[in-house]
Amino acid sequence: MRTINVGVLGATGTVGQRFILLLGTHPYFRLHALGASARSVGHRYSDITAWKQTQPIPVIAKDLIVQPCSPEHFKDVEIVFSGLDAEVAGGIELAFRHAGFAVFSNAKNHRRDPTVPLIVPLVNTSHLAILPYQQSLLLDSHPNHGFIVTNANCAATGCAVPLAALQRAFGPIESAMITTMQAISGAGYPGVPSMDIFDNVIPYIGGGEEDKLEWELSKILGDIGDQDGKVIELAVESNNVKLFVLSGIRVSAACNRVPVLEGHTECVSVRFARRPAPKVEDVIKVLKSYTCEAQSLKCPSAPKHALIVHDEQDRPQPRLDRDVQSGAGVSVGRVRECKVMDIKFVLMANNVAIGAATSSLINAEVAVEKGYIHPPTSVN
Amino acid sequence: MRTINVGVLGATGTVGQRFILLLGTHPYFRLHALGASARSVGHRYSDITAWKQTQPIPVIAKDLIVQPCSPEHFKDVEIVFSGLDAEVAGGIELAFRHAGFAVFSNAKNHRRDPTVPLIVPLVNTSHLAILPYQQSLLLDSHPNHGFIVTNANCAATGCAVPLAALQRAFGPIESAMITTMQAISGAGYPGVPSMDIFDNVIPYIGGGEEDKLEWELSKILGDIGDQDGKVIELAVESNNVKLFVLSGIRVSAACNRVPVLEGHTECVSVRFARRPAPKVEDVIKVLKSYTCEAQSLKCPSAPKHALIVHDEQDRPQPRLDRDVQSGAGVSVGRVRECKVMDIKFVLMANNVAIGAATSSLINAEVAVEKGYIHPPTSVN
Amino acid sequence: MRTINVGVLGATGTVGQRFILLLGTHPYFRLHALGASARSVGHRYSDITAWKQTQPIPVIAKDLIVQPCSPEHFKDVEIVFSGLDAEVAGGIELAFRHAGFAVFSNAKNHRRDPTVPLIVPLVNTSHLAILPYQQSLLLDSHPNHGFIVTNANCAATGCAVPLAALQRAFGPIESAMITTMQAISGAGYPGVPSMDIFDNVIPYIGGGEEDKLEWELSKILGDIGDQDGKVIELAVESNNVKLFVLSGIRVSAACNRVPVLEGHTECVSVRFARRPAPKVEDVIKVLKSYTCEAQSLKCPSAPKHALIVHDEQDRPQPRLDRDVQSGAGVSVGRVRECKVMDIKFVLMANNVAIGAATSSLINAEVAVEKGYIHPPTSVN
Amino acid sequence: MRTINVGVLGATGTVGQRFILLLGTHPYFRLHALGASARSVGHRYSDITAWKQTQPIPVIAKDLIVQPCSPEHFKDVEIVFSGLDAEVAGGIELAFRHAGFAVFSNAKNHRRDPTVPLIVPLVNTSHLAILPYQQSLLLDSHPNHGFIVTNANCAATGCAVPLAALQRAFGPIESAMITTMQAISGAGYPGVPSMDIFDNVIPYIGGGEEDKLEWELSKILGDIGDQDGKVIELAVESNNVKLFVLSGIRVSAACNRVPVLEGHTECVSVRFARRPAPKVEDVIKVLKSYTCEAQSLKCPSAPKHALIVHDEQDRPQPRLDRDVQSGAGVSVGRVRECKVMDIKFVLMANNVAIGAATSSLINAEVAVEKGYIHPPTSVN
Repeated sequence: MRTINVGVLGATGTVGQRFILLLGTHPYFRLHALGASARSVGHRYSDITAWKQTQPIPVIAKDLIVQPCSPEHFKDVEIVFSGLDAEVAGGIELAFRHAGFAVFSNAKNHRRDPTVPLIVPLVNTSHLAILPYQQSLLLDSHPNHGFIVTNANCAATGCAVPLAALQRAFGPIESAMITTMQAISGAGYPGVPSMDIFDNVIPYIGGGEEDKLEWELSKILGDIGDQDGKVIELAVESNNVKLFVLSGIRVSAACNRVPVLEGHTECVSVRFARRPAPKVEDVIKVLKSYTCEAQSLKCPSAPKHALIVHDEQDRPQPRLDRDVQSGAGVSVGRVRECKVMDIKFVLMANNVAIGAATSSLINAEVAVEKGYIHPPTSVN
Repeated sequence: MRTINVGVLGATGTVGQRFILLLGTHPYFRLHALGASARSVGHRYSDITAWKQTQPIPVIAKDLIVQPCSPEHFKDVEIVFSGLDAEVAGGIELAFRHAGFAVFSNAKNHRRDPTVPLIVPLVNTSHLAILPYQQSLLLDSHPNHGFIVTNANCAATGCAVPLAALQRAFGPIESAMITTMQAISGAGYPGVPSMDIFDNVIPYIGGGEEDKLEWELSKILGDIGDQDGKVIELAVESNNVKLFVLSGIRVSAACNRVPVLEGHTECVSVRFARRPAPKVEDVIKVLKSYTCEAQSLKCPSAPKHALIVHDEQDRPQPRLDRDVQSGAGVSVGRVRECKVMDIKFVLMANNVAIGAATSSLINAEVAVEKGYIHPPTSVN
Repeated sequence: MRTINVGVLGATGTVGQRFILLLGTHPYFRLHALGASARSVGHRYSDITAWKQTQPIPVIAKDLIVQPCSPEHFKDVEIVFSGLDAEVAGGIELAFRHAGFAVFSNAKNHRRDPTVPLIVPLVNTSHLAILPYQQSLLLDSHPNHGFIVTNANCAATGCAVPLAALQRAFGPIESAMITTMQAISGAGYPGVPSMDIFDNVIPYIGGGEEDKLEWELSKILGDIGDQDGKVIELAVESNNVKLFVLSGIRVSAACNRVPVLEGHTECVSVRFARRPAPKVEDVIKVLKSYTCEAQSLKCPSAPKHALIVHDEQDRPQPRLDRDVQSGAGVSVGRVRECKVMDIKFVLMANNVAIGAATSSLINAEVAVEKGYIHPPTSVN
Repeated sequence: MRTINVGVLGATGTVGQRFILLLGTHPYFRLHALGASARSVGHRYSDITAWKQTQPIPVIAKDLIVQPCSPEHFKDVEIVFSGLDAEVAGGIELAFRHAGFAVFSNAKNHRRDPTVPLIVPLVNTSHLAILPYQQSLLLDSHPNHGFIVTNANCAATGCAVPLAALQRAFGPIESAMITTMQAISGAGYPGVPSMDIFDNVIPYIGGGEEDKLEWELSKILGDIGDQDGKVIELAVESNNVKLFVLSGIRVSAACNRVPVLEGHTECVSVRFARRPAPKVEDVIKVLKSYTCEAQSLKCPSAPKHALIVHDEQDRPQPRLDRDVQSGAGVSVGRVRECKVMDIKFVLMANNVAIGAATSSLINAEVAVEKGYIHPPTSVN
């Protein structure tokens, strides 16, 4: 397979560092350019970065000179991974899209754009099918084929996988109650002050976390096409346009920060539309046998098991399970009856792996495998 | 007011130490006897106890000689507070009851006994009215007036208070979803190994924690009397007997251990029977104005506010709120609509104060105020 | 005793909040004015402050309107306690001194000024004797009697107490090796990011912590007067001037940040000048019997025991011992022989109590008792 | 290279689990037998073990049936790694030695035996030269060639490496002051109760930790041979015997438990015999260039760098540095002058890797490379 040059935007930040770590050993993505804010531009990456990972900076990144986050500094690059902060991500990512880049973003800015796929790579890679339509919107003004794909909020990502498995097997999920216990790494760096979270639980996460969880799950578990249903928003006048249809799931989320470094734990109860509800043993069977497109396409960063279902009554646990499969799968346990809804279970997903950088990476791998990535006709 | 001599069973354990700390400064309970297991018997309390509190051993307890946990060693004592482990609490507490003592227990053993009141002191002290019936069962064989009162599971206690407030104002609660984040002190000492809980969440608490929460709330929020309804169990043949009627609430609990020393946090969603459901602002009003019998009786250990309702969006938090009112009240916050049920909120209760020793203590104070405590006619 | 109006500078910060908490219940200091940065000025204190204490804001502080940190806004105030950041403390404290205020500062700015006493209130309150000289320097230009007294670095404070006790009994200490394990609260708020210190030790504390420890101990354990010895610096030409003489102690400090909320722990080894060195049992006796001037003056905030010497081999511990005596004393334990130096021990001092606000408070109480505080002749 | 069958004693414990993890991927050691206490004997390893590692049980171990810890159940095994508790390790290890096994032990029992090498694999593998003498002691009664090699206490191991580097370059170290901040994993499982160590420092580690550090460093840094010097103890009458000579270093250790999962941090000050003392820059140069025999022998588990010397002023840190080189090296930082002794620095060593199982493993690899491991002539 040909090597594809890639760049990282927001390279010195928390998510940027994870992108670089993953790309340091990737079989066909080749790290070629790093972008960051003005403070870092012009310096060697290893000189300017407060590297906070437990593995050393990949050799390929060490000596790269940090560039400004604008397309003309990313020559010879086809794909950019964006770990930018939401304050700046919106405009920068658009500029790269307009310049013909394939942008895979961890930022929230474009997730609700009706032309942008919001992809959990273990769930709804079929939504990439909307990309040609997104590209077509730029045809006149921008002759290149740039596009933006976003991954989901870290807490929504973990939950989407078992919900998708259940929906595929048992039909629509009427409602889901989700209480999260989220790791401090989800807040980036410097993030949560230690004085706030030591020996403590903070029952609130800023930036509209609960709303993200509630809304994003509807888009991820929804569909594309001009089917019957509630359409997000009609982007342009068009007859044959593919549009997102929100799933009808009602979600209620309560988000908490807990003193854990890595790995979001979530207690979930679901009620199915179908009556009678599926039995616990059937739910377990369905979760254990779930597979996704990223696996059948043999994407190198896809986990062997999209869902790991634990039989032990006290698992999953973030510290013990977050590094299994390099954090690319989702762990589920304690599947049992719920006295109020139908079924309840607990899940744990590594918020900095499948909840962030790993998601964008697998999304890009799927896009490559499905032929959405084309050599740039010209940059700048 | 007369001074009442009291004793503590399980005096060297975690809950026992809390009883002693509270009794060291009590206005009318006077610590007179301490009971513990054979290993400690005969030693000065301060010599034999691995004291783990942040305040020093009260002077009155220091030099007491530890006694065996049997009634004949508790002469001149009217009330015993039991911090015994469930492995031994059942029989020992019965022995003290038979010997005429008023037993206020933190153990789970007798909570489901249909003749034993299961009291959250900020909620259902009216259930003490069943005590004369409990005493009457012993009339022939044991001429004394011993009885057992238990307090509830620490996680159930915190939740019972706002649920009781809502039920009183808005009628029956159809169902409640509760996800707990419980402190390590709830497991006693040595309790949770640090290797298990550091940088971790354990999504399971042994000993049937979720079942306790689900069942005990039904009894606490239920009623006494031979009303229509589901009766726990008919203790004896009798016409005029007062019996517990379980509340019809359906509860689904998911219990988690988190790395917090003290203070259980719980995310709660409720659905009312009444349609339309009460509005958020009315729920807040009701929670803010809730008062209980322990307060109107001016029990010295009752909190000024049974419920503290926070307006800040990130409160309550265990570390900041657990010591307010010496941990005798319950903190509530983030009262808001639930997209799946009606209303959701978060609560925090100090599991070692109102969740354990403080509950028994207030229960005893209420029993004194309401005339249930009589001088023993004779102890053995 | 007359009531003395006091103000707090830097009132919204970590140390400022502690000052306010302590002053809320003080027998004769009456909180009268609060100063903070421009962002807070003009607002009610309780509206503008992110209160991070486990006890509520004292009633007296709640409704005070925050003032700019300049003397004309502190009318009717005699004493100001400064919890200002070092970036601004220097100039502001000087302005208050020049305006005739007695300034008791927790900031580092003036600690090395040869005319400013650097006081650990359990150790060297005799150094206040230099105040008249400090005041005299301003006589012409500033007719008031303002002065500045600083307390010491939090880690130096804890260590100074046992070292002073040993020096008093056994003569000069030749050298001391100190390894600290310092709590995160020592870094203020937001202070240490949780991502940096969770499950970690940081073997470095910025701002010259080790140098502070090494230097400040010399001044604290030194003396005043024109004695033979190494003089800090001659402030002005003068014949009868009292100057600080640095103690000859050589100190080597290694400072570490550990994941503890409150309470600095320090491992100390000392070598005495005197040969043979004192025996362990004599050292313990001396530490146990140590008393200081703040105690004999009956200062209300002075601890009953300046040093608490533990016999248990695993004490002191920050979590268990930091709140004893409201954190106003220092705990010592494990006094034993050192195979390299003479004696080693471990100590624990509450860095936010005796290590910060409580020190300034006792210093002010001693100054009152010894007659250094006079009603202001005029402010502005 | 031929494959060598190995067994693990104490296979279900903390250190045993680490041995199994390391052996699961070893190039020439083949896991063949697992021994544990009676409770586990006869069960499949994966059924009986509370596996607490973040990586899954190696396939080769899963289905092994746990054996009693006696030699007759370890047929076809040449080397046993002992992770046994000190309560039972002494006798069991002797039994295996007598039966002709090469025993590599993590237990403390035989460390002070004058015929047993106490090896830090990055330091004193030359001490293995005493093995033929140890074997000769059994010649008559036990015709096999069994022997015991122990690794050192986890805190002594980390410190031994830089001290050995300095001693090799600059001659004898007169004295060393060591203050440790040790991880909870050093206490095994269940080990330290969370209630004891959360938000806390325990300034004491049981089992004679400080004494181990002080004594073991003398043996590790000492020499073998009938040289002039202080001999540990003359084991038998013999002329040509090689014996251990204790290094003359005086060590003073203060050992603390801190809330860290893995990785012991140590603050060290040293004084050299040589005057003038070496300069800081020369010390750094020597530490950076240090290599050891396990490296030159190309042992597969030896780290590439025995010492990693950090230039950043806030490193090493346990969380960031403990997994580098799979924890097989030692990290050093903050090398600087000491105002009391000569030089001070901080080090961090992974207590469960180079501080425990990895040490035994490298020791065995060195023993293989140097020809000390022979096929057993017969096992019972």
